[in-house]
Amino acid sequence: MSLIHQLVLEFKKLPGVGEKTAQRFVHSLLKRPSQDSLRLASQIQEVTEKINPCNTCGMFTEFDECEICTGSNRDHSLICVVEEAHEVEAIERTSGYNGLYHVLGGKLSPLDGVGPQELNMASLLERIEDSGSGILEVVVATNSSVEGEATAVYLEAVIRPLGPRITRLARGIPVGGDLEYVDHSTIVEALAGRTEM
Amino acid sequence: MSLIHQLVLEFKKLPGVGEKTAQRFVHSLLKRPSQDSLRLASQIQEVTEKINPCNTCGMFTEFDECEICTGSNRDHSLICVVEEAHEVEAIERTSGYNGLYHVLGGKLSPLDGVGPQELNMASLLERIEDSGSGILEVVVATNSSVEGEATAVYLEAVIRPLGPRITRLARGIPVGGDLEYVDHSTIVEALAGRTEM
Repeated sequence: MSLIHQLVLEFKKLPGVGEKTAQRFVHSLLKRPSQDSLRLASQIQEVTEKINPCNTCGMFTEFDECEICTGSNRDHSLICVVEEAHEVEAIERTSGYNGLYHVLGGKLSPLDGVGPQELNMASLLERIEDSGSGILEVVVATNSSVEGEATAVYLEAVIRPLGPRITRLARGIPVGGDLEYVDHSTIVEALAGRTEM
Repeated sequence: MSLIHQLVLEFKKLPGVGEKTAQRFVHSLLKRPSQDSLRLASQIQEVTEKINPCNTCGMFTEFDECEICTGSNRDHSLICVVEEAHEVEAIERTSGYNGLYHVLGGKLSPLDGVGPQELNMASLLERIEDSGSGILEVVVATNSSVEGEATAVYLEAVIRPLGPRITRLARGIPVGGDLEYVDHSTIVEALAGRTEM
């Protein structure tokens, strides 16, 4: 197998990349100055070797603990629980949240063999217990899929006895959304969660 | 700037990759076993260092000359001229062509400062001259864009004095294409190029 074809196969392992996209990637690497392509290679290597999950929350970091967990300007009484690390970035970009995070690393999915043991749940419960009532609120921000909802229900059951307030992200019409195109369940949730003007 | 962000920026330089796709790539690399990610890095490095254009036709190869130019089972009297190396692969996949290739490395585009000197045109003319009438036919397979057509017209003008037959790919209705959805110019070309049944 040629070198080019081997690299095409490697690129195809990236999410959403098929044969043609992988070939375009390889050809674009071959067309540009070689130091640019080598920089991509060395940075993939560096990230792979130096980035690891934060010991506390599971976010990717270059250090033992991530910048959010060690941040003195963050609200350490608030933990937002997400499924994946990239969801932390989505929330951080909004600058609308100032608490800590906890990355589960997935969602409960018994059919795929993912139970509570496969997720970072024990470490979340430990964090809450070790804080000695320092954690006042847990925001459950799992996705709105069937598995995400099941994970949220499970989290509520195990966190409830530990004391903190448990909340979840509001469900409703997205900003800019048109009622005509919003699905049935979202309208039902938006009606049920209607707020005073 | 964090290591992750630097890698996101590098991935964004690949064709068709935006911020979110680049982030998904980085997170997928971080989620899988590190030897898989390191393999991608080392193969990018290997391809960058070992692959170079074929001295004769401009195709990417690990050697001085590519396997097609040195192939004893290829028809050495026929040259197909394409804009980019990946178009050679598109033709090779069909197994419908057995001649040689010549990669121009682009198309004439005066507005972008790409003239005949910027493309591998001189080497094409040399190949035809050096063959001593050994090249019987040149198939012009530049794309059907305005620049591609201009490149084809230019090629015809410079190759004509050298003797070989000059052909171009047929224009017409694509296989499986529906007349209702085929554009105006394609129908005009298909009518003009109609063949006996």
